[in-house]
Amino acid sequence: MSARVLIVDDLFPNVKLLETKLGLEYFDTLAAMNGPDAIAICEKGLCDLVLLDVMMPGMDGFEVCRRLKNNPVTAHIPVVMVTALDQPSDRLKGLDAGADDFLTKPVDDTALFTRVRSLVRLKAVTDELRQRALASRAIGMGDPLVTAAAETGLDAQILLVEDRPGAADRMAGALSQHHRVTVEADPLTAIQVAAEGEFDLALISLDLSGHDGLRLCSQLRSLDRTRGMPLIMIAEAHDRARIVRGLDFGVHDYLMRPVDRNELLARARTQVRRKRFSDVLRGAMQASMQMAVTDGLTGLHNRRYLDNHLGMLFSEEGMRHRPMAALILDIDRFKAINDTYGHEAGDDVLRAFADRVRQHTRPIDIVARYGGEEIVVVLPDAGLAEAHAIAERIRERIQAAPFAVQRATRDLPVTVSIGVAVRCADDASPGDMLRRADEGLYEAKAGGRNRVVAQAA
Amino acid sequence: MSARVLIVDDLFPNVKLLETKLGLEYFDTLAAMNGPDAIAICEKGLCDLVLLDVMMPGMDGFEVCRRLKNNPVTAHIPVVMVTALDQPSDRLKGLDAGADDFLTKPVDDTALFTRVRSLVRLKAVTDELRQRALASRAIGMGDPLVTAAAETGLDAQILLVEDRPGAADRMAGALSQHHRVTVEADPLTAIQVAAEGEFDLALISLDLSGHDGLRLCSQLRSLDRTRGMPLIMIAEAHDRARIVRGLDFGVHDYLMRPVDRNELLARARTQVRRKRFSDVLRGAMQASMQMAVTDGLTGLHNRRYLDNHLGMLFSEEGMRHRPMAALILDIDRFKAINDTYGHEAGDDVLRAFADRVRQHTRPIDIVARYGGEEIVVVLPDAGLAEAHAIAERIRERIQAAPFAVQRATRDLPVTVSIGVAVRCADDASPGDMLRRADEGLYEAKAGGRNRVVAQAA
Repeated sequence: MSARVLIVDDLFPNVKLLETKLGLEYFDTLAAMNGPDAIAICEKGLCDLVLLDVMMPGMDGFEVCRRLKNNPVTAHIPVVMVTALDQPSDRLKGLDAGADDFLTKPVDDTALFTRVRSLVRLKAVTDELRQRALASRAIGMGDPLVTAAAETGLDAQILLVEDRPGAADRMAGALSQHHRVTVEADPLTAIQVAAEGEFDLALISLDLSGHDGLRLCSQLRSLDRTRGMPLIMIAEAHDRARIVRGLDFGVHDYLMRPVDRNELLARARTQVRRKRFSDVLRGAMQASMQMAVTDGLTGLHNRRYLDNHLGMLFSEEGMRHRPMAALILDIDRFKAINDTYGHEAGDDVLRAFADRVRQHTRPIDIVARYGGEEIVVVLPDAGLAEAHAIAERIRERIQAAPFAVQRATRDLPVTVSIGVAVRCADDASPGDMLRRADEGLYEAKAGGRNRVVAQAA
Repeated sequence: MSARVLIVDDLFPNVKLLETKLGLEYFDTLAAMNGPDAIAICEKGLCDLVLLDVMMPGMDGFEVCRRLKNNPVTAHIPVVMVTALDQPSDRLKGLDAGADDFLTKPVDDTALFTRVRSLVRLKAVTDELRQRALASRAIGMGDPLVTAAAETGLDAQILLVEDRPGAADRMAGALSQHHRVTVEADPLTAIQVAAEGEFDLALISLDLSGHDGLRLCSQLRSLDRTRGMPLIMIAEAHDRARIVRGLDFGVHDYLMRPVDRNELLARARTQVRRKRFSDVLRGAMQASMQMAVTDGLTGLHNRRYLDNHLGMLFSEEGMRHRPMAALILDIDRFKAINDTYGHEAGDDVLRAFADRVRQHTRPIDIVARYGGEEIVVVLPDAGLAEAHAIAERIRERIQAAPFAVQRATRDLPVTVSIGVAVRCADDASPGDMLRRADEGLYEAKAGGRNRVVAQAA
């Protein structure tokens, strides 16, 4: 994936060198000579990845990284820190600031390109989610990015696939401080455990005895159930080629043995945060789609859902010759409740009304709020007699006990009128059936309310 | 990206050979020995890409490909056809059937791996969209995949970047049969044209005089405005290395010179279909999010939107010291309209009522359907006197002309009562302001309807 790489360094020759290297690999580059400029470029959404020098006058690289990772607008941009000194403490400080990786100057080309490509590819998938989240914010649906960026990356479910008992104990011990860890020595069992569990991360030894750990990584990246789970390879110095291969096919990160305890914790946390960032965005999108077919007050389906589903039930060939019934329920004298006790009392009644109706219908029935105080119930496979009996039972249950309003300080008697109709062979659309049910409802109201009227075709 | 590759071939040694090659590159493989088995595996969602032999007894590869590409469940799975005979007619037949590419036996390893990796990566981004579409279908929001898969790939906007006049004319001529083509010889202008236009596809010569066409590809893949646009490279035989590089960073396909007219048309069409597939899914998602904050009947914002936005307006520091007013509008005796003339007439009145209110408010005002026959208008920066004047104007416009119902065969006089309130310094939440507006509404109703009552804090 091509991408715009932002190079941040206060020394011009360093910028130039990286620009040339990346340009030859067909990356687009931008440059910033200090932290504030770098942050401004990221906030404007002008880059896909940041190569960030640690030592800069004014705001140093750690601070720049921290600010980028704590800002919902920039938290998704991968940051690779670049340092002249390979002090473990620096490395750790960068990872703790949220950096995705750490490269040492002079920068090794393979390491640089492999890492940049891998991070850019992973970002491409998240970007699609992020675009949807931005769109949802633009139309006023709240801001999932803020929640997503606030994720701590702690308290995760982690799978550790390692068959050296000593190493497994040490790593599991360190991780258990903040996470729940499952250790698995056998790669085949590991796949099963991973597919059946809900892991936020898997750490996988490349040197499992008798098994190529990288193959396990590839399988976990391929299976539907596990491809969303980030992977960290645990490698030896001689595993360079396999590390590059792994990053190339979608493994997220790696740790070199002997594994530094703090680096382990920092890298694990970064991956967990990344995964949860995506999960939160997906969840928000799912919730917003759910909202589009749900009535906010009662939690019932809304009219849009009813129209969609009834349309499908009417058009499906297999459903055409099966019976179907519809009830339209309307609370009697609902306006008087609103006018006398206020809208909040009216809302209480509507919610409780919806609950009672739901309690007396089956899971396969569609229960939808149709309008103000009206509910429609669609009963697949029900004939007129059965539908009438169900309507009668609901009518009776509404009347049976008064409705609590105004924080349960007052009880209101409520009744409901119900029109019932069944589908006819020559109905052209669901509207025909509903119209007959509506006529039944009208008669029920005219006949004195609190009654059920079934309308023959 | 690792992936599950389905190898379809009726000869066991061929299957074995590809299995071994792909396995060494850490791909997971599955095998099918005939067309129907292959289709079944794809329908079950068990693979990410299909390597499809052309010559098979029974259903041949072309037919398998056609069925996969015409089925909404499998249309998104890339198909690479593999054939022993490199007949241009075969090649074309495969591309016409919807195949993403065509490889000749004995299969060249670099070509195979480059192509498989590139297609799998592109699929990973679409998969995220597809998952959202499946989720939206599961909750009953219609099925965008059916629409997306039915896309023809014709009548597209195509940008052709080519500075050899003869070649440009030939290609533009061929493409113009089915598409609108813009030819651009200068790569710098081409970027601008691409960023400002709405192209479905760009074809880019790698051998622009004085410019590396691959760099143009990389820039188009990097820019926000153009990264969604598919790219096809036009290359010479000696460009192998650059083709691999291009496919690696996200270019979608390539054509070798001399460009075969029919292959050009087939490959262009495949890319246009692919892009529109994603566009349709994105559009459906956007629509479903829009629906979540829109009232289906009136097209106004719904209560959920109002609650979100008012909450934001109340919590933002910058908004805290600026005036704000709210109107609650309720149609007088609306229930009588429903009861006398039917629900459809009631709906007509609600729609027309919403339209008139919208016509007399500003774009920055929030106009939302609050409940059955109630609309709330939020007026940022308006004080009590101004809000009262706006409410009075709306009341007057509602009364001024009757409402047409029952397909304009009947006119109903309608009036509205309106409660007005402004935000107070000690309001804890938007609910406080709305409650006062509701009290104003109640007084307006009690005072005889068709009037505006402003409620001081």
